Amino acid sequence: MPQKEYLMIPGPTPVPPMVMNAMSQPMFGHRSPEFAEIHKNIIEKLKLVFQTQNDVFVLSSSGTGGMEAAVANIINPGEKVLVLVGGKFGERWSELSYNYGAQVIQQDFTWGEPVDINVVKKELANNPDIKAVFATFNETSTGVFNDIEKLGKAVSNTNALLILDGISGAGGIEIKTDEWNVDILVTGSQKAFMLPPGLAMISVSSKAWEKIKNKKSPCYYFDLLKTRKSMEKYNTAYTPAVSLFLGLNASLDLIIEEGVNNVFQRHIQLRNATRAAIDAMGLKLMTENYCASPVITSIYAPKNIGADDLRKVLKQQYNISFAGGQAQLKNKIFRIAHMGFADKMDVITAISGLEMALNNLNSPVELGSGLKAAQEVFLGRHK
Amino acid sequence: MPQKEYLMIPGPTPVPPMVMNAMSQPMFGHRSPEFAEIHKNIIEKLKLVFQTQNDVFVLSSSGTGGMEAAVANIINPGEKVLVLVGGKFGERWSELSYNYGAQVIQQDFTWGEPVDINVVKKELANNPDIKAVFATFNETSTGVFNDIEKLGKAVSNTNALLILDGISGAGGIEIKTDEWNVDILVTGSQKAFMLPPGLAMISVSSKAWEKIKNKKSPCYYFDLLKTRKSMEKYNTAYTPAVSLFLGLNASLDLIIEEGVNNVFQRHIQLRNATRAAIDAMGLKLMTENYCASPVITSIYAPKNIGADDLRKVLKQQYNISFAGGQAQLKNKIFRIAHMGFADKMDVITAISGLEMALNNLNSPVELGSGLKAAQEVFLGRHK
Repeated sequence: MPQKEYLMIPGPTPVPPMVMNAMSQPMFGHRSPEFAEIHKNIIEKLKLVFQTQNDVFVLSSSGTGGMEAAVANIINPGEKVLVLVGGKFGERWSELSYNYGAQVIQQDFTWGEPVDINVVKKELANNPDIKAVFATFNETSTGVFNDIEKLGKAVSNTNALLILDGISGAGGIEIKTDEWNVDILVTGSQKAFMLPPGLAMISVSSKAWEKIKNKKSPCYYFDLLKTRKSMEKYNTAYTPAVSLFLGLNASLDLIIEEGVNNVFQRHIQLRNATRAAIDAMGLKLMTENYCASPVITSIYAPKNIGADDLRKVLKQQYNISFAGGQAQLKNKIFRIAHMGFADKMDVITAISGLEMALNNLNSPVELGSGLKAAQEVFLGRHK
Repeated sequence: MPQKEYLMIPGPTPVPPMVMNAMSQPMFGHRSPEFAEIHKNIIEKLKLVFQTQNDVFVLSSSGTGGMEAAVANIINPGEKVLVLVGGKFGERWSELSYNYGAQVIQQDFTWGEPVDINVVKKELANNPDIKAVFATFNETSTGVFNDIEKLGKAVSNTNALLILDGISGAGGIEIKTDEWNVDILVTGSQKAFMLPPGLAMISVSSKAWEKIKNKKSPCYYFDLLKTRKSMEKYNTAYTPAVSLFLGLNASLDLIIEEGVNNVFQRHIQLRNATRAAIDAMGLKLMTENYCASPVITSIYAPKNIGADDLRKVLKQQYNISFAGGQAQLKNKIFRIAHMGFADKMDVITAISGLEMALNNLNSPVELGSGLKAAQEVFLGRHK
């Protein structure tokens, strides 16, 4: 029998069979009415998931391409930007902004903690010439999610745009793009959207368009004005990744069929069960409850065991893939993704594997202790 | 019964079932040894197909992203470039070069005719400060292929780099990247490589790296230095389109199993059969034999019938999709792609549909006349 594999990393995430089937349809022309019809459906469904009336586009690139689209279209050389960094993906906004010649104010927050809105307010007050604030919705490297409602309120009172990396969050965690004043939301296909990597979905507000029309950067493939022009006929500026578009159409159907709010609630329950289990096993969670990501949980490895050794045992003995720590967290933490096509028994599998792997490594964990706590959450007996 | 569809446009082209199967494998992490192994295999096979020892990379974007990578990494503002234009895709090089601040010498050639090497030599002699020559291998909009061996010889005697859009040609038409002195070759997944759109495969010579190390453009997603650095561990700079990589690995296996030279010969035979048939039907080919593309044939519609009306009948009555003309050729020509996963009976289908559609439109064409000519080519009875 081929080995069953349990993929619990923050992207790519498992792809549901019906999405695989959709992607296996025969090719057809992307300048055809058939493609335009599918494209139109995709955009309408994305607007529902993103809770937005803003323009929405699908770019054929990974999420980083979507981030570059945001920076390249918004930032002209010499302009001041505020970048909020609390992990590896926040740093990417800084790198991109430097690349495009911005005058970057990088505001660091402790990894594992959320953005402090008061600090942001102070920076905005001290620097009224800030053109854009770059933030991360769900910081994948630590498992923290930020309060975008408050952040949006702070930014919307200024001339600055709020540009949000929602790559690992959107689709799994509620995002009210319009109500929260998110000017550009960048997302990716391979996280909660249950697709292979290769698409970046992005929304653009009218406040953002006002800035974009003065774009000076040379960017061509990610040119949002050209993309908007093509969208008038539900066309794309350049050849789209047709099979991934077909998959996105199918995965959005799954999300809408389940109910967008049910999807968000499911992720919250998976997080709660995972955290209760980790707690019951006596392991240390990296984040506090109030900012704990619904889609990924970061956990410190026991002091005497490196996180990467633990992950190796999990992979070799149980075919379970967890993510490791990045940068200064390397070998210190491991991360369990419960993101996208994930349900109760995936958490049970993850916790059971973890309990057994820790026993394999002679770390004292009572078998079943974490499992029981997770089950209690699923049965509604544990808050 | 669902309708059988006959897709004969220059990308996306039909995807073979075994490639579809490969793309339907469950997801796995792109930072895993499994991915690195597949990536390594892909690169080795691409080097074989491209006949190169240069560095080869796979970017997760359409071919245009690969073209932008070439321009953005090579051209700094104010530098002089020579762009050879004989169709719509040649014009894309000009647009990109302008975007990146180049001083562009655009040399136009009649659409439907190849590049005149003597003109290129003269431009190079008159402008010794030209940093790069941008050319098109197979101009998809007209069905012309250019003599890259001669062009490469002319450019290699100068300090300029030869940068080639091989998107619709490579994989179907022989390209000797090293022997012909191609410094950057850009290709795409959805043409002769028999995959859905979403990947750009690119090769980079050491002469090109010398220029790239002084890159000044802000481009990030398409940064070739970063891509090369990641490649040391067969990694990618950003999340790769995993399922398309799996498909590329499988489609390269098909190409190598058939034999690279057999693939090229097959395309030449398909072209010869198509052209013989068109000729026998009394229709007018757009290109002459010596520069006729092996992967796509452009044909003038009869004077009294618009090419787009003809295509409409073909699609509605016979489920056959041909491409139309672009820009000034719109409604004047139609284009039959015989590219990638295409064989004798695809040409027979195309010609048969064309004969019948012309009859539907009351255009005098003897049924079977084109088919007979194509069959004669396949039987070796016609040159």
